[in-house]
Amino acid sequence: MSTIRPPANPEADPRVKAVFDDIRATRRTDFVNNLWRALAFDPTLLESTWAEVKRVMATPGAIDPLTREMVYIAVSVANGCGYCVHSHTAAARAKGMSAAQHAELLSVIALAAKTNQLVTALQVPLDDAFDAAR
Amino acid sequence: MSTIRPPANPEADPRVKAVFDDIRATRRTDFVNNLWRALAFDPTLLESTWAEVKRVMATPGAIDPLTREMVYIAVSVANGCGYCVHSHTAAARAKGMSAAQHAELLSVIALAAKTNQLVTALQVPLDDAFDAAR
Amino acid sequence: MSTIRPPANPEADPRVKAVFDDIRATRRTDFVNNLWRALAFDPTLLESTWAEVKRVMATPGAIDPLTREMVYIAVSVANGCGYCVHSHTAAARAKGMSAAQHAELLSVIALAAKTNQLVTALQVPLDDAFDAAR
Amino acid sequence: MSTIRPPANPEADPRVKAVFDDIRATRRTDFVNNLWRALAFDPTLLESTWAEVKRVMATPGAIDPLTREMVYIAVSVANGCGYCVHSHTAAARAKGMSAAQHAELLSVIALAAKTNQLVTALQVPLDDAFDAAR
Amino acid sequence: MSTIRPPANPEADPRVKAVFDDIRATRRTDFVNNLWRALAFDPTLLESTWAEVKRVMATPGAIDPLTREMVYIAVSVANGCGYCVHSHTAAARAKGMSAAQHAELLSVIALAAKTNQLVTALQVPLDDAFDAAR
Amino acid sequence: MSTIRPPANPEADPRVKAVFDDIRATRRTDFVNNLWRALAFDPTLLESTWAEVKRVMATPGAIDPLTREMVYIAVSVANGCGYCVHSHTAAARAKGMSAAQHAELLSVIALAAKTNQLVTALQVPLDDAFDAAR
Repeated sequence: MSTIRPPANPEADPRVKAVFDDIRATRRTDFVNNLWRALAFDPTLLESTWAEVKRVMATPGAIDPLTREMVYIAVSVANGCGYCVHSHTAAARAKGMSAAQHAELLSVIALAAKTNQLVTALQVPLDDAFDAAR
Repeated sequence: MSTIRPPANPEADPRVKAVFDDIRATRRTDFVNNLWRALAFDPTLLESTWAEVKRVMATPGAIDPLTREMVYIAVSVANGCGYCVHSHTAAARAKGMSAAQHAELLSVIALAAKTNQLVTALQVPLDDAFDAAR
Repeated sequence: MSTIRPPANPEADPRVKAVFDDIRATRRTDFVNNLWRALAFDPTLLESTWAEVKRVMATPGAIDPLTREMVYIAVSVANGCGYCVHSHTAAARAKGMSAAQHAELLSVIALAAKTNQLVTALQVPLDDAFDAAR
Repeated sequence: MSTIRPPANPEADPRVKAVFDDIRATRRTDFVNNLWRALAFDPTLLESTWAEVKRVMATPGAIDPLTREMVYIAVSVANGCGYCVHSHTAAARAKGMSAAQHAELLSVIALAAKTNQLVTALQVPLDDAFDAAR
Repeated sequence: MSTIRPPANPEADPRVKAVFDDIRATRRTDFVNNLWRALAFDPTLLESTWAEVKRVMATPGAIDPLTREMVYIAVSVANGCGYCVHSHTAAARAKGMSAAQHAELLSVIALAAKTNQLVTALQVPLDDAFDAAR
Repeated sequence: MSTIRPPANPEADPRVKAVFDDIRATRRTDFVNNLWRALAFDPTLLESTWAEVKRVMATPGAIDPLTREMVYIAVSVANGCGYCVHSHTAAARAKGMSAAQHAELLSVIALAAKTNQLVTALQVPLDDAFDAAR
């Protein structure tokens, strides 16, 4: 089920086809997952979303690609987005995440959520030492 | 302000002192931040929380320490815990996070939150390819 | 699946029947969606919830009905409630939301979630100019 | 307090100055709020964030500007971002939001959060009628 | 700071005065906390919010008053509402919550948040045994 | 669907078997629900998670077992974890939660989420009276 009806033949629209082709070329696979098929209902939204994903996730930078995927998983878990957890866990595994790393990642995410609650429940005042703007 | 009154002299309790001493030794600093001073109101909670933080964050493993801190920041941002964002950004910087890495980390967190919303708003159905249990 | 067993014949209870009848009359449809069938396990909770939904969403006021639905979608997306996103997207469409408006709504929601993360990650101090209580 | 040290003289960097100038021109005010001053620590992040805010919030489209601000407020409240709630409430008021509209907006946000919880707690199964992909 | 300017003399409005008087009588104290003073900017919102708080929190029922406060704290912590955590921790203490109970409450909240993350990260399929609608 | 492939025969690993046996003994049932079967992919994570659940939820303390389950439900609802809501609602019912208590629990959770939004939207300043550290 979905809140929009995805276009039956999305690549009939040349703007959609251009994005799908770039997804396939960037990821070196024929597979275009359902998020992009859903976003095809609005080519402008599709284009801007893919442009940002490509720039932030598929461009060399100061953080390695696997770490970026682990951060993406962490945010998706915290926000409770099942689809996102699935797709980025698959992506992390494709980029080499081992079972041991997966288990450690889960331990860090779970611990962070736990201490987030303790801090919020106690309303801990900020230490001056943490102020970067001093 | 805080929801508990932290003990005036927490290290008078030998269980609290033992935890504080281990925090100082593990982190190689005399600084014990306010979270631990607040948790000192209940030595059992203090001990179990520190034991988990030490095991998950300060033990060598399959994920490097800086990546763990970046994941911790990501979860803390998603959960809106200002104190946690401050303390783990300071920890990541102490472990070598550059300004460029900080900016990229923020870009990944922000993008993940954005696509989380799009997926949830569209209620995108899961691709079979993402099922690890197939 | 559900955490309660909805009554097999909810309208046998006159309090439930009165609410269902009012839902049908207010919305000018025979369709009573599953939320109300689930809430029928406790007529008091059903009555108070419907009374508030009717007052806030189906009474003329200072904000037009479609805008209210778009705000409802935004909150439901941020809270990750799939059922709520589905039901209020259907309601917004019934009140005239176009595909272009739907796409723009998603762009605003996604951007807001993104900048929420940036602000929280940076712990931006409040500008005095924003204080309405000055 | 903040997790980064904002540049003391951000407009010494011509990329930052160009963004600040565009903010002032677009909003017709000399005031540049702290979010942009904080983002100036990374001109690339500053440029991409402002470009998206300008495109989504300050370009004529299918949803009127005040409605967009009310949606922005709703997401910011749900995500618990105090700074964002302050800045977008000020923006909504500048675009004409009356006290009556403000009160109604709060009523809708509060009701949505409430029914989100009821639906999640009951795990209400989706009605077939809500599937746009049928 | 606040997003609305609270009325300088709220009880000059007889509807506001009636609510404040009922708060004082119900809680047997002269103290009216800031939430109600802020809500006074819209007497209708003030009346409906207080009516629900009084009905749900201050009326004898199937759950004892202290348990209700502990549930309220748990939701407020999960939603990151600092003011709410403060006010309901004070209320729970006034209803007899001991330091030991407070520490246990924090342990349950923290554990729940932790396992919530694990379940979401693993996308654990639902056991048939949990379906109350079978 | 799941993000990990659960072991086909988890109890072939003696560490997993020991945890499953303790779950069965502690809960006095042969049923081991899917969360534990999923966590079996990493025996260390399984052991530490069960140890904490057993200590926090199945050890006599200052808060009665049913109240702990109700708090667990509240956090799980606020975090939008459907599996967790299902499993802990079943657990609460097994510990005696009546339909009337269930309905009241939902009323408290829903009200808390509602007032959390109002407080955040209004950015209500903290009353001095709530500071436990005074």
